[in-house]
Amino acid sequence: MTERKNQAGNNFDQWLDSYAARAETLSVSEVRALFAVVSRPEVVSLAGGMPEVSALPHDLLTKSFNSMMQKRGNYALQYGSGQGDPILRDQIRELMALEGISSSIEDLVITTGSQHGLDLLSGLFLDEHDVVLAEAPSYVGALGIFKHYQAHVEHVYTDNDGISPEALEESIQRMQEQGRRIKFLYLVPNYGNPSGVTLSAERRPRVLEICRRHHILVIEDNPYGLLYFDQKPPNALRSMQEDGVIYLGSFSKIFAPGFRVGYVLAPPAIRDKMVLANESAILCPSSFSQMLISEYLATADWKKQIDTFRGVYAAKRDAALEGMAEYLPTLETTRPDGGFYLWVTLPEGIDSKAMLPLAVKELVAYTPGTAFFGDGTGQRHLRISYCYPSPDNIKVGIKRLANVINLQTELLETFSAKEH
Amino acid sequence: MTERKNQAGNNFDQWLDSYAARAETLSVSEVRALFAVVSRPEVVSLAGGMPEVSALPHDLLTKSFNSMMQKRGNYALQYGSGQGDPILRDQIRELMALEGISSSIEDLVITTGSQHGLDLLSGLFLDEHDVVLAEAPSYVGALGIFKHYQAHVEHVYTDNDGISPEALEESIQRMQEQGRRIKFLYLVPNYGNPSGVTLSAERRPRVLEICRRHHILVIEDNPYGLLYFDQKPPNALRSMQEDGVIYLGSFSKIFAPGFRVGYVLAPPAIRDKMVLANESAILCPSSFSQMLISEYLATADWKKQIDTFRGVYAAKRDAALEGMAEYLPTLETTRPDGGFYLWVTLPEGIDSKAMLPLAVKELVAYTPGTAFFGDGTGQRHLRISYCYPSPDNIKVGIKRLANVINLQTELLETFSAKEH
Repeated sequence: MTERKNQAGNNFDQWLDSYAARAETLSVSEVRALFAVVSRPEVVSLAGGMPEVSALPHDLLTKSFNSMMQKRGNYALQYGSGQGDPILRDQIRELMALEGISSSIEDLVITTGSQHGLDLLSGLFLDEHDVVLAEAPSYVGALGIFKHYQAHVEHVYTDNDGISPEALEESIQRMQEQGRRIKFLYLVPNYGNPSGVTLSAERRPRVLEICRRHHILVIEDNPYGLLYFDQKPPNALRSMQEDGVIYLGSFSKIFAPGFRVGYVLAPPAIRDKMVLANESAILCPSSFSQMLISEYLATADWKKQIDTFRGVYAAKRDAALEGMAEYLPTLETTRPDGGFYLWVTLPEGIDSKAMLPLAVKELVAYTPGTAFFGDGTGQRHLRISYCYPSPDNIKVGIKRLANVINLQTELLETFSAKEH
Repeated sequence: MTERKNQAGNNFDQWLDSYAARAETLSVSEVRALFAVVSRPEVVSLAGGMPEVSALPHDLLTKSFNSMMQKRGNYALQYGSGQGDPILRDQIRELMALEGISSSIEDLVITTGSQHGLDLLSGLFLDEHDVVLAEAPSYVGALGIFKHYQAHVEHVYTDNDGISPEALEESIQRMQEQGRRIKFLYLVPNYGNPSGVTLSAERRPRVLEICRRHHILVIEDNPYGLLYFDQKPPNALRSMQEDGVIYLGSFSKIFAPGFRVGYVLAPPAIRDKMVLANESAILCPSSFSQMLISEYLATADWKKQIDTFRGVYAAKRDAALEGMAEYLPTLETTRPDGGFYLWVTLPEGIDSKAMLPLAVKELVAYTPGTAFFGDGTGQRHLRISYCYPSPDNIKVGIKRLANVINLQTELLETFSAKEH
């Protein structure tokens, strides 16, 4: 194909006048272009959120595949219901019970990863200019969805115990004074992405009470809850309140993301609309993926496999914290007890986004903090993902990162010394 | 869970004031409730669009699974790119070449079934009140999407040679006189759902010329093109024009729908936006599904398998037309040369939607014509899907349908005789 270019060097787009308003919300991040470089093997990537799927033995999958094809092969190949396989939904109840949730299979909807669950929910609730309350920082993929639905994200102060109830109350009041409609509070209460922090047991009922009092839905996104290291996180928010909490779960981290299977537990009226929205968007979630996972849950020792994953990630977390202690001892970092991420605060004056090209030149990549804020802040932070590289490579990566940060700090000191 | 009911007997919804405007577009069709009954084994369903997946040998899948896991297992379990696997995209080029299309893998985006491709495109292009031109009748799943994006569907007169160029020109002029923005023409040019008709070779360049002249995008949805019976359909519209046609393809009918893999071929600027929208909605399409299909295409004789499917559906089409000739010889029906559907015109005065409960009582189901129009018309039509039941059952179903229709006709005649 010949590509026509306009004078600015972009692809000429003769349909530029045809797009919907929401299409303008889609933009390529500057970070994205850099990440093409990151796939080079010599670069240690502390940037992605890819789970360590090699810790899932292939023979478990082969067994599940063979027995699933024998039992339900033609169903797995066929269209299914828009709500998802009832057998899998029943098994998910068992999974959620581990976090204190009791539920009916009627209120579960299977989605194409929990990402699509959040996308569908956002479509159901968000009109232009509506407000979503979110942690500070918050999951980049959720921020992208909220932006796509032209909503405003209001970040709420978050510390090592998770989102602050006092700050939440204040944010709500400020938004209400401005006459804005708050649709929901979105949060990742366990081992948050990118913060790694967990909402404390003490704060959970307070957050729920505040949202209930202000008639604000809570969307609890919990992909990492079962990947704790030292001690289990507090029970899910949904376990404490049924009708004001929508719970999102995923098989991407406790099984494998390649199947794109997540789930949404929602109050009945919302769940009904979710099913219709799911059918409109994709007809039905993949029967094959669902039934393979269902067979895996029915026949494999999936709890032991989750223990394996927990061990794998705990060792990586240790490597990351050791690397930080050894090479960047003066920097502030969160100390997650589960999940995939460290959230690091840089010395004042260093911009993590501006520094990224230098880091890539030093053969290490990370995600700049700005990716996790809808309001352009976060420059002084960066996310280290320890989920994918080996423990040794994590340390190598942090050592390289330290070189870049130390050089930046020196430059900064020299510069500021000259200034005075 | 206890379900709270309001006085009308519906689930009480405390979030009723929180939904977005687009949530109101989601409603349960009356037909849907009836279809729960249809799953009873004694009912012959001529209603669904389920392909005959049992014609796909399981050992082909097992072989593909095993070799795929060996070659790319850990990639199949992992997140992938938002655009889709480049190897599969390259194989899709070969598939599309069968319909005269030449393309670059750069311009292909893998989607969660072609349904999600259409959903994403609609999100990119449709603002509230925008106009979509469509065949009369048109695919129910597409109409659902257009409604969800609050667009207006303008049906264009369609006969046995497909959409009418003259009527298309007229519709465009009428819409333009009303000051409305037409965003695209959506059509299923081969063996349309529900019509079974194919856009003639003579009309194809005329339809393209009209749309080009009026700067209207064409969305060519082609799930059935390779499932022809007697002779190949004309080449795809996309083969005749690159920059004004977006082509949607699917593995659901030539392989299996349970994997939810479809694809979109679009001009570069649109494709770029599609990838971003895909990432926002689902992060990435299922790596596992994609790589399994890729391995199947690489190692199995997929062309021979498509021939098998063609033979299976041709025999079913024959059974359906024989059934119509034997039991309902006076009714007008389309005579498809491929695909899954007959479109039947009922005697004047019979409403296919009103008749459906009587048909289900007679243990046969179909889809009322109203499902395929966005404007409430179609009462005098019904769709017969011959894709799923056995040829014998198709005839049994049509015989039962004839009983219902004949009884309705008699009642109608008695009634109108009394009136005079």
